Amino acid sequence: MNPDPISPGRSTAQYQELDAAHHIHPFSDTAALNAHGSRVITRGEGVYLYDSDGNKIFDAMSGLWCVNIGYGRQELAEAAYQQMLQLPFYNTFFKTTHPPVIELSSLLAQVAPEGFNHVFYTNSGSEGNDTIIRMVRHYWATLGQPQKKTIIARENGYHGSTIGGASLGGMHYMHEQGDLPIPGIAHIEQPYWYANGGELSPREYGLKAARALEQKILELGVENVAAFIGEPVQGAGGIIIPPSTYWPEIQRICDHYGILLIADEVICGFGRTGSWFGSQHYGIRPQLMIIAKGLSSGYIPIGGVLIHDTIAKVLIEGGDFNHGFTYSGHPVACAVATANIRILQKERIIERMNEEIAPYAAQLWHGAFDNHPLVDDVRSLGFFFALTLVEDKASRKRFEHGSSMALRCRDICLKNQLVMRATGDSMIAAPPLVMTRAQAEEFVRLAKQCIDEYARELGKI
Amino acid sequence: MNPDPISPGRSTAQYQELDAAHHIHPFSDTAALNAHGSRVITRGEGVYLYDSDGNKIFDAMSGLWCVNIGYGRQELAEAAYQQMLQLPFYNTFFKTTHPPVIELSSLLAQVAPEGFNHVFYTNSGSEGNDTIIRMVRHYWATLGQPQKKTIIARENGYHGSTIGGASLGGMHYMHEQGDLPIPGIAHIEQPYWYANGGELSPREYGLKAARALEQKILELGVENVAAFIGEPVQGAGGIIIPPSTYWPEIQRICDHYGILLIADEVICGFGRTGSWFGSQHYGIRPQLMIIAKGLSSGYIPIGGVLIHDTIAKVLIEGGDFNHGFTYSGHPVACAVATANIRILQKERIIERMNEEIAPYAAQLWHGAFDNHPLVDDVRSLGFFFALTLVEDKASRKRFEHGSSMALRCRDICLKNQLVMRATGDSMIAAPPLVMTRAQAEEFVRLAKQCIDEYARELGKI
Repeated sequence: MNPDPISPGRSTAQYQELDAAHHIHPFSDTAALNAHGSRVITRGEGVYLYDSDGNKIFDAMSGLWCVNIGYGRQELAEAAYQQMLQLPFYNTFFKTTHPPVIELSSLLAQVAPEGFNHVFYTNSGSEGNDTIIRMVRHYWATLGQPQKKTIIARENGYHGSTIGGASLGGMHYMHEQGDLPIPGIAHIEQPYWYANGGELSPREYGLKAARALEQKILELGVENVAAFIGEPVQGAGGIIIPPSTYWPEIQRICDHYGILLIADEVICGFGRTGSWFGSQHYGIRPQLMIIAKGLSSGYIPIGGVLIHDTIAKVLIEGGDFNHGFTYSGHPVACAVATANIRILQKERIIERMNEEIAPYAAQLWHGAFDNHPLVDDVRSLGFFFALTLVEDKASRKRFEHGSSMALRCRDICLKNQLVMRATGDSMIAAPPLVMTRAQAEEFVRLAKQCIDEYARELGKI
Repeated sequence: MNPDPISPGRSTAQYQELDAAHHIHPFSDTAALNAHGSRVITRGEGVYLYDSDGNKIFDAMSGLWCVNIGYGRQELAEAAYQQMLQLPFYNTFFKTTHPPVIELSSLLAQVAPEGFNHVFYTNSGSEGNDTIIRMVRHYWATLGQPQKKTIIARENGYHGSTIGGASLGGMHYMHEQGDLPIPGIAHIEQPYWYANGGELSPREYGLKAARALEQKILELGVENVAAFIGEPVQGAGGIIIPPSTYWPEIQRICDHYGILLIADEVICGFGRTGSWFGSQHYGIRPQLMIIAKGLSSGYIPIGGVLIHDTIAKVLIEGGDFNHGFTYSGHPVACAVATANIRILQKERIIERMNEEIAPYAAQLWHGAFDNHPLVDDVRSLGFFFALTLVEDKASRKRFEHGSSMALRCRDICLKNQLVMRATGDSMIAAPPLVMTRAQAEEFVRLAKQCIDEYARELGKI
């Protein structure tokens, strides 16, 4: 009916039928999904999505934490088109390189914190996190300490879904399917004051949570520990914003024991916290930073590892590093990422968000929810927004079935054309960095409307 | 100088300097590479590449086994452009789907062997191989056999570069960097008659090599074995074409013991062997097939796992499968892959290659090399071409430093503007499936010229 080969104009029912017949969705209960039918997203523009039934949806999750510059930027489509005509692919294995990977690498060295002058490319954050396992082991072996191979990560951290990435992550429901984690990964407590802080103040608890790293290093023996990895702000874990004392103490411990500090910047990188990288927001000095998502604003798959000079020197001088992906530094992906970063720079998207919109949106968010009877631990940082559904605020009492309640709340949001995510008993959001003041008002108004609707359903208001 | 943002028209020296300053290449000795300077590939057209010094290069490796339809197909650039404007990204996690992932899934079910009606998406072959580890363990656990978790793979197999993929692979130089393989992976002999066949005929040896699987199953206990995985033709291992008796015997053993057969079709898939899938060429019936590379002809990163109905049923009914990637089923990647497959179909590229060009090219290849004094084990299948550098053909005596000799031979090829690859003591090629008769003549003439040049250097002719 419609001659457009991309969207042949099937009906929603036809799309759902074909989807159910042929597509296994990630992180899904496919039987339940197929019984209900997937929602068919057909178009995006700015912060909005449109579905096959003509609904306009506010995407307060930026796709999946990635569409930082918003949907519909023609410059990125042009970059993909031109590069695909010019050189759609070439590898970087055969003593070969190409202009797009060089331009992106050079640009990343400009926008990254001082001392990060080298990039190793992957196709995703998962592959980036997976890469650092072999990279840090190779690093220490090159320095004559091959036994330094254990990486310390955190409970409820998320580092992707490969065997390596899921092992670094602290998601038990992932570990259970597939016999994870692999050996050589240890986990410590996450810095989640609301859940674990007890009677301690956030500042006191931040120090306590960080010192779990020191205990783990001593337990394992520093001679066996390669690195510590963490997301500056835990994303998929539920937007867990650590107390201000946490990261400085982690930095002190890593420095003191001489273990590498790795920042998983897949979500935080490219502006989410208001700084270009989450590490800058917290003033930490990692040696490796994993990037993906915001790198291309999700327009094309690409990820990588930014490597500090101190590590790069050892890798470069250390002979062959026997690792890489066919599409490492893919020319089209690099061209799109370069166009994305140039837009971020030229339009000062991160700076404007940080200076103008984020403070206003935070004020709206806290104004709407700080005194709401159904929620507590209302939190925001940059364009991270979250809250926790609670049974009783005064006693910090959480619901027994909090995660199924959050899923119900998420469905209310979707019904009201707002994409937020349910994680545990938290409702979380991370809108595109291009959200305007008026859109911030719309976002918070919609979120408030949905939480109110759920509170009424529960008889809480 | 050049206003084109993708190729700002730097000099070769400037490109090399920036590349060395900021880019860590995959599978490379970066210090050696930087000292010499990378070759800067700037454009592709059909089977040819062009570099920043204006050289025209015959790409007999299809990029890295992927550019099956050749460089410069505008239809794919158009597909990327249109989709990126329409919907540059949306996830398939949030009970959501989109037209491009549905169209591609439906199309894959059409072109895949009978019974393969479902797809799970990844960004690469590495992620596809990594995925099957958790997928088969989840499958057996769902069927009440959680202890069936060991996967048997092969020495010198290649299944990508994640922790999981590299563990499935049998590359010792990869295992050494990173403490691999992980537990639950076992390796058996590869079906490499020329190296391991001894006095046996290829047919006898094929059976013997396959029966190593049976021995390993019995050694591990069939109650602990989840699956066997292999590339129909080993690619990165050096284009190892198994004896005709090998795969039927593997099939018999998998059937007999009730373990899953997994075909890594990353290289073989989408036409390389002359059939759409390597499994079809060998008449085997795997339950899972990993795809990537030819799926998009390398124009954009995408991979996946094709899932047979018998497995899909269990996965669909088995509740949540806690695995996936942000870019699983990326809309732009799916749109490009769909355009690629439609071109393969419409222009009958695989069928024409198989019926017309491959037999002719094979005749040229064997004509040029069967009696050449420097080489032996001259082999071809579909658009796979390989030969082994040997010290003495009569006694099948190989060179002591065969791999450094092959690297020297590879450099001679590059100097003569021919991309072939050195793997161990083999020289290998896998040209784009669109190679014409005249180009096949050019390819073999160039290859002969290079091998002759090396033979003269060695005093062999």
